Amino acid sequence: MSDIDPPELHATRRPCVAALEAVVGEAIGVLDHGFVRLVDYMGDDAAIVQAARVSYGKGTKKVHEDRGLIRYLMRHRHSTPFEMCELKLHVKLPIFVARQWIRHRTANVNEYSARYSILDHEFYLPDPAVLGVQAPSNRQGRGDAVSPERAAEVLAWLKDDAEQCYRHYEAMLALRAEQGEEREGVARELARINLPLNYYTQWYWKIDLHNLLHFLSLRLDAHAQYEIRAYADVIADMVEKWVPSVWEAFRDYRLEGAVLSRLEIAALREAAQGRKPDLIALGMSKREAKEFAERFPELGPGNDET
Amino acid sequence: MSDIDPPELHATRRPCVAALEAVVGEAIGVLDHGFVRLVDYMGDDAAIVQAARVSYGKGTKKVHEDRGLIRYLMRHRHSTPFEMCELKLHVKLPIFVARQWIRHRTANVNEYSARYSILDHEFYLPDPAVLGVQAPSNRQGRGDAVSPERAAEVLAWLKDDAEQCYRHYEAMLALRAEQGEEREGVARELARINLPLNYYTQWYWKIDLHNLLHFLSLRLDAHAQYEIRAYADVIADMVEKWVPSVWEAFRDYRLEGAVLSRLEIAALREAAQGRKPDLIALGMSKREAKEFAERFPELGPGNDET
Amino acid sequence: MSDIDPPELHATRRPCVAALEAVVGEAIGVLDHGFVRLVDYMGDDAAIVQAARVSYGKGTKKVHEDRGLIRYLMRHRHSTPFEMCELKLHVKLPIFVARQWIRHRTANVNEYSARYSILDHEFYLPDPAVLGVQAPSNRQGRGDAVSPERAAEVLAWLKDDAEQCYRHYEAMLALRAEQGEEREGVARELARINLPLNYYTQWYWKIDLHNLLHFLSLRLDAHAQYEIRAYADVIADMVEKWVPSVWEAFRDYRLEGAVLSRLEIAALREAAQGRKPDLIALGMSKREAKEFAERFPELGPGNDET
Amino acid sequence: MSDIDPPELHATRRPCVAALEAVVGEAIGVLDHGFVRLVDYMGDDAAIVQAARVSYGKGTKKVHEDRGLIRYLMRHRHSTPFEMCELKLHVKLPIFVARQWIRHRTANVNEYSARYSILDHEFYLPDPAVLGVQAPSNRQGRGDAVSPERAAEVLAWLKDDAEQCYRHYEAMLALRAEQGEEREGVARELARINLPLNYYTQWYWKIDLHNLLHFLSLRLDAHAQYEIRAYADVIADMVEKWVPSVWEAFRDYRLEGAVLSRLEIAALREAAQGRKPDLIALGMSKREAKEFAERFPELGPGNDET
Repeated sequence: MSDIDPPELHATRRPCVAALEAVVGEAIGVLDHGFVRLVDYMGDDAAIVQAARVSYGKGTKKVHEDRGLIRYLMRHRHSTPFEMCELKLHVKLPIFVARQWIRHRTANVNEYSARYSILDHEFYLPDPAVLGVQAPSNRQGRGDAVSPERAAEVLAWLKDDAEQCYRHYEAMLALRAEQGEEREGVARELARINLPLNYYTQWYWKIDLHNLLHFLSLRLDAHAQYEIRAYADVIADMVEKWVPSVWEAFRDYRLEGAVLSRLEIAALREAAQGRKPDLIALGMSKREAKEFAERFPELGPGNDET
Repeated sequence: MSDIDPPELHATRRPCVAALEAVVGEAIGVLDHGFVRLVDYMGDDAAIVQAARVSYGKGTKKVHEDRGLIRYLMRHRHSTPFEMCELKLHVKLPIFVARQWIRHRTANVNEYSARYSILDHEFYLPDPAVLGVQAPSNRQGRGDAVSPERAAEVLAWLKDDAEQCYRHYEAMLALRAEQGEEREGVARELARINLPLNYYTQWYWKIDLHNLLHFLSLRLDAHAQYEIRAYADVIADMVEKWVPSVWEAFRDYRLEGAVLSRLEIAALREAAQGRKPDLIALGMSKREAKEFAERFPELGPGNDET
Repeated sequence: MSDIDPPELHATRRPCVAALEAVVGEAIGVLDHGFVRLVDYMGDDAAIVQAARVSYGKGTKKVHEDRGLIRYLMRHRHSTPFEMCELKLHVKLPIFVARQWIRHRTANVNEYSARYSILDHEFYLPDPAVLGVQAPSNRQGRGDAVSPERAAEVLAWLKDDAEQCYRHYEAMLALRAEQGEEREGVARELARINLPLNYYTQWYWKIDLHNLLHFLSLRLDAHAQYEIRAYADVIADMVEKWVPSVWEAFRDYRLEGAVLSRLEIAALREAAQGRKPDLIALGMSKREAKEFAERFPELGPGNDET
Repeated sequence: MSDIDPPELHATRRPCVAALEAVVGEAIGVLDHGFVRLVDYMGDDAAIVQAARVSYGKGTKKVHEDRGLIRYLMRHRHSTPFEMCELKLHVKLPIFVARQWIRHRTANVNEYSARYSILDHEFYLPDPAVLGVQAPSNRQGRGDAVSPERAAEVLAWLKDDAEQCYRHYEAMLALRAEQGEEREGVARELARINLPLNYYTQWYWKIDLHNLLHFLSLRLDAHAQYEIRAYADVIADMVEKWVPSVWEAFRDYRLEGAVLSRLEIAALREAAQGRKPDLIALGMSKREAKEFAERFPELGPGNDET
């Protein structure tokens, strides 16, 4: 998946994480032609604790409290110590995924330039199992997979269009001039505009752990597009290896936690006192009440009938 | 070009710039289907001076020195006062231009989402006059226009591929189901991956003046791709109307100024004393010497022959 | 409080908020010598909706749904539309408050420079009512007010030290040379290092609404230092005038909402089903259980006795 | 200077720089009580080249061209590859230096909190050799050292005031209660406001190389305050060890290079053709002409007399 030799071993006085060292330089496959490759990292669980202890000075103590301190920082959204760790990845990804990913501005990026160089002949075709219909209830998502016949039809369009666009891309660049034929090569920066959004690009991407966790909280979410979630899943595995205490706290407080509104808390208080809350009377809109009922089915409207 | 009514007039105590008010809400056409529309602005030349005077306290004085103070700030790269102005634009632009533009991270963006909504059937086709060959000397640029025959061939490919991809996009979405035919609509977030990079998107974009000037210094440059330069030109006109003293200083010190290296300054010193500098002996690489000679042809190698 | 004339009225095509126009240019007093003065603003509730509608394209509709859309954006942490509004303030504040404030990095700042100019003879003395003891249970906070005698003693130290430091500051600068006396004036950048952290500085500060709400959520919190909370309170009033729908949603979802962990949600689910949750058995640490019990006293340990 | 044990050696597959490893963990003294300690770093010269080569794809080639590529990137202000390296420092510094330093917003910071903990009894006293008068020609700088008598007087004020403020700080905190005496301890967050700006604080500070070079270009400058320059000097030495090719290019193009305006370039062109430029006729203001003449004394006004 990557033609890069495994990096050599060096001696360092910097913090090291054995579980992560094992995957440095290794390209982990994502989708049909993509990968995530760990290039470098800075810091570990202890580096976060160390930075937090500078803030709190003599106010914090024993080594065996590291996990507790990390949970405290996560619970109270003290984000700056998490910024003390940094991850650098080499990623190959379809352009439409890159367009979502780049919206995370607090990161460093060097992308392959199709003004300088020629894009490879590689494009993304979804697996039929994830080729879903437009979700009826969610304007931005996808639902069940389409029928096998429909999938075959759609995949043929995607494949044929991608192939034809690339043939013309090459023809514009005059890459494969036939014998005796001399064609003018159109500028690379122009020829590439003919390629569809499922073509692959690649980049180096570097980000601190606080912003990476924010990226993951959005891109691991069920509402994120499947294709970027596939990348987030691979990165999440790396983060778990890298900073296991942070990962545990992140899962408890962010991934599996929830942000509740004043009205939702009021409803839960009522329920805790044995009363069934009247969500609309509490002031929720229908949409808010519906979302609340999905989260706490035992409290929602219509539960009485059961 | 835009179906938005001219905004109403209100009374405000905020700084106003009459020359810019005249174009608020107006969509100015760029390329074949794009536009730049001024939505809002904050501040003016005086707002920069006002903020700088807070920094310098009683150390700065009279109103008629505003232009001089702005030139001083620009000359000495005191950038924070320029951050006190802000511009908000609505822009319609091809996706490949959006991909370059978004690399400027210190800005606020809301882009049209092809996960929620359906992209319009509008794509960019270059004018034959700017359909250039790959530049021989500059790996990222374009040279002279191709021949009319070649242009016709290339434009036909671009047009036909864009049309065909869009037909299949619509077919995947099952937008135009024939009578009696029931097709499953593929999720919008998937169908769109079939569209080429020359399709138009749009966004709201907001940025402070310091970062806007940085954007312009890169995107007005002769090395920038023609298509993004077309947008930068329109925005530059707005900036000139908005903050004329800043624009003048920016032109003198940045656009038409130059960053010279230690070696280039040494060469100019020699020349100023009537000697012809030996660029290689001064320590320049061949490439540096060549770039210097292009900038100062009267001093470059080979000038002796004349 | 400010020697600045009320700004003149101009006609503009930009969005205006009448309730906020009424306070443009007015310095609102904070603490004993500080102020917050609204210099400029960009956008309103409608500007957020407008930007969000570009993202969602034809997927969003009627004007009377603006409030609902803003609540939806806030609930789902879609933050970019809130970045489309901007506020610019002139603030006078003690240096120790400025040191906390400046940690919010996503803002533009021009601060009074004590290298260029001489700091005014103005320092902050707390009102005896807020001169609290170190909080016993909270390492970073303060508790009840000290006794009147102790307050008098402490205030005398603060006042006398601030006065003496300023006398020497002036003496170093040789500002008030006695007749016949010629003293060398020490550089301003050095003399100022003798001033205590309660001296006032001032700055222009500009920030977008998303980041301003983050600032407010931290600085309106009961754990924030009283003195910066006093500024946050004044700014909160401005935000309520400026973007009332945003303010309402922010209060419901952020200020009076809560982030609950996986374990806390599990506990609430149990309670909603009529069981008293065993917090420790669920996996909470003692500290987490304590914090949970403070938030939901009806569910905490020790509630059984009642 | 630091009570931290030298970090242990580990094996890593990440890029290492032997010259920098030698100083990891070592606190290098700055001013009278400050230090800079290298905690961690990411990347090296080769990491910049590696990231740039992703951008340029097959367009770049041989290993022995690394230095040339780095010079090219620096010359053309291609800044993103430099963002691929990161440095983490532990710094002890006076508060007035911290106030300048923190203005560099694109960095990660964890500062010692005087709300949680008690500040050490350590303050900065300038060496008499750098205790300069206010510069007559430069509103923000300092000139020659004051006389020994004046220095003694000033240092006595600085020392006595710092001591007295700290005594009252401790008294407010009720740290050293006399026997039989019970005093209320004022909240730490309040007591600290009595301390002058020359007291030391400390922080962890992490920044990418591009932004670090920007920091250094401003803080190594002759116009920067001596005390922050002392820190910049130490960091510059680290950068030279860390990324020697970057450092060389930075020195040639930034530190010892110059930004020239359109008018300055016109003047140099004239001089290169053997004519003495008339700066005012070219359009320079008196101030611009004066600054130009200081930079190129051989071309300035008044040079004719010689």
